[in-house]
Amino acid sequence: MDALYAELLARIEKEIKQISIPDEPKNLYEPMRYILSLGGKRVRPVLTLLGAKLFSDSFESSLSQALAVEVFHNFTLLHDDMMDGAEIRRQVPTVHKKWDENIALLSGDGMLVLAYQLIANGSPESLANRLELFSKTAMEVCEGQQLDMDYALLDEVPMEDYLKMIRLKTAVLLSGSIKLGAMNVGYYGEQLEYLTQFTESMGLAFQVQDDYLDAFGGDQFGKVSGGDILEGKRTWLTIKAFELANDDQKKRLRDAYAAPANESRIKAVMSVYSELGIESLAQTEVESRSDQAIKALELIDGNADAKKTLSWLVNQLVKRKV
Amino acid sequence: MDALYAELLARIEKEIKQISIPDEPKNLYEPMRYILSLGGKRVRPVLTLLGAKLFSDSFESSLSQALAVEVFHNFTLLHDDMMDGAEIRRQVPTVHKKWDENIALLSGDGMLVLAYQLIANGSPESLANRLELFSKTAMEVCEGQQLDMDYALLDEVPMEDYLKMIRLKTAVLLSGSIKLGAMNVGYYGEQLEYLTQFTESMGLAFQVQDDYLDAFGGDQFGKVSGGDILEGKRTWLTIKAFELANDDQKKRLRDAYAAPANESRIKAVMSVYSELGIESLAQTEVESRSDQAIKALELIDGNADAKKTLSWLVNQLVKRKV
Repeated sequence: MDALYAELLARIEKEIKQISIPDEPKNLYEPMRYILSLGGKRVRPVLTLLGAKLFSDSFESSLSQALAVEVFHNFTLLHDDMMDGAEIRRQVPTVHKKWDENIALLSGDGMLVLAYQLIANGSPESLANRLELFSKTAMEVCEGQQLDMDYALLDEVPMEDYLKMIRLKTAVLLSGSIKLGAMNVGYYGEQLEYLTQFTESMGLAFQVQDDYLDAFGGDQFGKVSGGDILEGKRTWLTIKAFELANDDQKKRLRDAYAAPANESRIKAVMSVYSELGIESLAQTEVESRSDQAIKALELIDGNADAKKTLSWLVNQLVKRKV
Repeated sequence: MDALYAELLARIEKEIKQISIPDEPKNLYEPMRYILSLGGKRVRPVLTLLGAKLFSDSFESSLSQALAVEVFHNFTLLHDDMMDGAEIRRQVPTVHKKWDENIALLSGDGMLVLAYQLIANGSPESLANRLELFSKTAMEVCEGQQLDMDYALLDEVPMEDYLKMIRLKTAVLLSGSIKLGAMNVGYYGEQLEYLTQFTESMGLAFQVQDDYLDAFGGDQFGKVSGGDILEGKRTWLTIKAFELANDDQKKRLRDAYAAPANESRIKAVMSVYSELGIESLAQTEVESRSDQAIKALELIDGNADAKKTLSWLVNQLVKRKV
């Protein structure tokens, strides 16, 4: 792992353990500590610290901003798991399964408030700007989640709409995370636009790569999981396939998704993917998006170590095999 | 109705219709407009405007703060209705019944973000103070709701714990509402403490009066609704009764609540209330809390019209019959 990333990650983990969360009422606060303790790549808070480091000597004063985006991200996971009826997250029960729906709902609400409390704990000069950015980002994430639920009910979704949804649901928070760090150390200049391009391209590259690996990644024995296909999940691959398919291929895709979720469905869908060259199209898309990210990064006039780590992160997120 | 209250209420209603809420995604934003359009006394936003008027010539600059507390209040109603499984609010279907649980959950989240956006839209000088007060208030309201759910599972709740829960669930938001108005026009002095005393006493008086009227208010024909008793709801009256009851009376109360929810239950509970003199104890409590509110109000050195309207409001909220 990149040395600076490792340093920032370790610091984030340490700080997460020290977030001031009261003990009582237990059913409000314990679920917050629980979900925050489950780990993960902590990409968003590390981005915040790197955003600070790009334009200043130190990331220390932006730790609270970093925690804010991680708390916010976990708030969205908590409520999204309720909406999706998900029972497991990171190998353990989701909050609404371990406790119940009411506790999950209210703890999530409290986490959103906690995120705002952490945002407030930064440089007074940039408070208004950070607050505006954070609220705009939070509302866009809600919009993305709603579009995701809306699109799940539709037969076909145009690629343009799907990319808009992914941008809102995933990319804007990555973008908000890095810009909060920059703003907190006093940077509001035109380079924020490059940070937006960098993170949004990285987010889209990562999402497509994630979809790609599920279908084409294979495990160490070359076996495809096809979990997304079994779940009937809409991904970049399905959208692209429907976009390019002729009538016969569309019918085979629809029949496959209407039939029971088993190996035959995976085979049927993968065979259409293969006819349409979806694998290489997805690879090209990931490469083109990550190239865009790297190009935007190169335009940034900031700390070289931070830039090196951001470049490493893009390659890490979109590398061919996990 | 008090002339100033009527003026402020009309203005709030007008401004609520003009809150900038996007059209799309429809399933995210329509429920927000729906719940905000259902009316109500709008006590909290009027308190905010009166808080501004107490310490300045005009309330205009605090309209956004007033809308913020009303949006926040409606966010809590939306999510609380989900937690309570309530199907009707103000004679129409609740959001999770009219749409569904997922839409209600996400729209509520979005309303909390919207409330913060409205808070941000005030005087820059007091932004940090307003934000701190608003987040603290919001978290306390979450704590109150959690305690309410926790206590619902307990056999008996000490009066002290019950009052703490009511303070968190209801009174702190009234208090936060009026103080946001005062802070937004630049008042941070020691009189904020009187505003706290005023609104928290008013909130407790109102809650006990509400409980009282349900059991002892009667309709125009003197008929008691007893809705709270039928619902098995914990109120100031039940807590007081359990506090004062001897073993026989406790047993009769427990038996009544264990038996089917019908007229006999109402009779049995009301008969214990009568033996213990709960009616006059409740009246005394309401009077003493509203006296405390009025006394705190008299200590405030502020605009006389605003004080007159606040005094009218206390009497209005706790008057004997609705």
